[in-house]
Amino acid sequence: MSATPAPAAGGEPRVLIVGAGFAGLAAAKAMRRSPVQVTLVDQHNHHVFTPFLYQVATALLEPSEVAQPVRSLIRRSGNVAFCLGTVTDVDLLAKRVQTDHGPICYDYLVLAAGSVSNYFHNTDIATRSLGLKDLAEALQLRNQILSCFEQASWATDPAERAQLLSFAVVGGGPTGVEFAAALAVLVAGMVKRDFPALERDEVKIVLVEGADAPLGSFAESLRASATRALRAKGVEVRSGATVTDVDDSGLTLDGGERIDAATVVWVAGVTAAPLAKTVGVTLASHGRVPVDRTLRLVDHPEVFVVGDLAEIPGGKDPLPMLAQVAIQSGSHAARSITAHISDGRQTGPFHYRNLGTMASVGRNDAVAEIGPFRLSGFAGWLAWLLVHIMRTVGLQARASVVISWISGYLFADRPVRLITGPRESGRDERRRSMSPTNEED
Amino acid sequence: MSATPAPAAGGEPRVLIVGAGFAGLAAAKAMRRSPVQVTLVDQHNHHVFTPFLYQVATALLEPSEVAQPVRSLIRRSGNVAFCLGTVTDVDLLAKRVQTDHGPICYDYLVLAAGSVSNYFHNTDIATRSLGLKDLAEALQLRNQILSCFEQASWATDPAERAQLLSFAVVGGGPTGVEFAAALAVLVAGMVKRDFPALERDEVKIVLVEGADAPLGSFAESLRASATRALRAKGVEVRSGATVTDVDDSGLTLDGGERIDAATVVWVAGVTAAPLAKTVGVTLASHGRVPVDRTLRLVDHPEVFVVGDLAEIPGGKDPLPMLAQVAIQSGSHAARSITAHISDGRQTGPFHYRNLGTMASVGRNDAVAEIGPFRLSGFAGWLAWLLVHIMRTVGLQARASVVISWISGYLFADRPVRLITGPRESGRDERRRSMSPTNEED
Repeated sequence: MSATPAPAAGGEPRVLIVGAGFAGLAAAKAMRRSPVQVTLVDQHNHHVFTPFLYQVATALLEPSEVAQPVRSLIRRSGNVAFCLGTVTDVDLLAKRVQTDHGPICYDYLVLAAGSVSNYFHNTDIATRSLGLKDLAEALQLRNQILSCFEQASWATDPAERAQLLSFAVVGGGPTGVEFAAALAVLVAGMVKRDFPALERDEVKIVLVEGADAPLGSFAESLRASATRALRAKGVEVRSGATVTDVDDSGLTLDGGERIDAATVVWVAGVTAAPLAKTVGVTLASHGRVPVDRTLRLVDHPEVFVVGDLAEIPGGKDPLPMLAQVAIQSGSHAARSITAHISDGRQTGPFHYRNLGTMASVGRNDAVAEIGPFRLSGFAGWLAWLLVHIMRTVGLQARASVVISWISGYLFADRPVRLITGPRESGRDERRRSMSPTNEED
Repeated sequence: MSATPAPAAGGEPRVLIVGAGFAGLAAAKAMRRSPVQVTLVDQHNHHVFTPFLYQVATALLEPSEVAQPVRSLIRRSGNVAFCLGTVTDVDLLAKRVQTDHGPICYDYLVLAAGSVSNYFHNTDIATRSLGLKDLAEALQLRNQILSCFEQASWATDPAERAQLLSFAVVGGGPTGVEFAAALAVLVAGMVKRDFPALERDEVKIVLVEGADAPLGSFAESLRASATRALRAKGVEVRSGATVTDVDDSGLTLDGGERIDAATVVWVAGVTAAPLAKTVGVTLASHGRVPVDRTLRLVDHPEVFVVGDLAEIPGGKDPLPMLAQVAIQSGSHAARSITAHISDGRQTGPFHYRNLGTMASVGRNDAVAEIGPFRLSGFAGWLAWLLVHIMRTVGLQARASVVISWISGYLFADRPVRLITGPRESGRDERRRSMSPTNEED
């Protein structure tokens, strides 16, 4: 099988975009009026608004509220075709990538394969912790949280019960902070209304952070504000602590101290997607592919690398791995390709505009740093709300998210408290459970 | 571990309800003001509105729109406790059931464990077809349908492509008819907007029915109307055909004829849940537990069996396995228990009120039989709409369903076209894919 588009001879140039995350999707959208034939490849059939994944994991939003089918998003772009597949190799000389369904050739390549969780070479951590990097992980985490509460309600051994009700979140970046705060809100509601036999203080939520306070990229005052907000919600903030190991009953800190927890959530950083290793260049920090200021590979001006996969030169340090960098670099690559095709112009350098960073710490509370402005508490929360409503992709999803939020806000309820998922191995399971006497004509 | 409630001595009688489907939930709700201590056990943490499962499978509704956490539904019933667990055995003499978490004792038992798909002792069918009996199966089917379209768009071999785009639905009851019609609507929309390279007539949807027309329980005129509606949507209706085998490339009919299809959906009937076999009585039709007219086991007046699990005497034949029978029998059992506790009254016989049956056959079209009234086309659809909006459990779910329907109706769109699910074996997968060079500090 092969989805190789027709060769360029006589036709429009073929642009291949690998990845339909923030960077790849921005690139595809920016080329929708360009005289090119775009192929967008992703291993999932949907684009995920990753800043909301923690709300899926804490049972506030459904998958369709944070993810849209890629085919819906490119509907109005007649020159963009989507292929569901995993790119396994990049051959720069042949101008061709290999996928699990066959090869795809290109004239221009935009690599936007994103990042994966960074486990720092520790297999125990990778296999025993839960992540929050894609929809599958968010749903797995939701099922795990709810299952722990159900199991705890059966447990008669106090130690077992305590362990089931302990949740450790490793990593005090925006994802860890937002998830820990949302988990505290979920827990407060569930204990009060769903599990009358449980007490709130039986549930332990610990946020482990290596630095002296969470949210290292924020201003000092906002970091203090966020820490206070977390503690007010009953989240234990363990700063200056490094996790050395994760096992089936919890984790170990570098001083040897144990934190027993049935659930360990690992959000301690990301590293470029493994595809970077197939590009054939020496990788830079966080396993990223180094590019010049025009986002291209030095020896291959037809290859752009954008988003989390790229180490993009910034002022002093390389640019951080953030959604905003991904969106802006993806668009820039697309504009560069369009300009090059239209009039052979050399592409200009990429300039990142920092639009600000923010993190929600529960109902009515968020910290936000937008240019010279530093907001916290209710003002920060309003800013967070406004920006995130505007950024949600798709009109219907936006309406649905707003309704879920209003309902969640008014009733403090979490409608998606479902332990569920497709029966992955359904047929096998059925095969095992079937006996000749199991059925009736 | 054990969740055995305190013994009855001195306290309120303990009522154990096994199953939180239509029957079990109706029983629990009917006892919320009774002087009893109710324990409700189910293997899922949610109650499913099964008539909408086909809408999850066809990407119109999300799980939270057809399923509600059981704990939410019993919140206002202070005397009902929920336990997530699987009941594996019933010990009538000891008045105790065994679960995967330990035993639960009872004074009154309401068995409402429901039904499972009937594969007629055929392991090939059980293992190679997809079901539509619970949320996990509906999500698996949704993923399968969408994946077939994605794979077909890569396929260069015409035979492979045709097979991927062929869907066989076995069973012409309301579930099969509603699913086939909804699939045809989904396909029409996807082909038009998401897969410009595919043609509608490349996609084959076959509904296989053993009788001379689908919807055997409906009046002749309505059956003809439904068949016409299905055919108008491009569904091939194969009546009078019996499936003898299902394999990886399709199915075989009793005349030896083959239908090649990558997806075979098995909705050809149900049989009582395997728990029936542990009750220790001779089972009746469809593997059901026979009860008397008061819904009790003959030798155990403290044990009620209701819903699909019970063979309940009707006028001439036993009552059918329908949601309405389940709801009414569940409530009756609860009222009987309450009456018996309050004043020792003997319970009266159960009388089933047939409120009518209906099946939707796509946008603007349904057949409905309500008492002497037979509706089809738009009138039938309005009746279907009204009844199903009223029956959806929970205010928020109802609002959400209505919004999804309006949006789906206006834009003919299916927002939940996501191939996704929790990473069941995520940790193992990660372990396999991890190599020492896979990560970056």
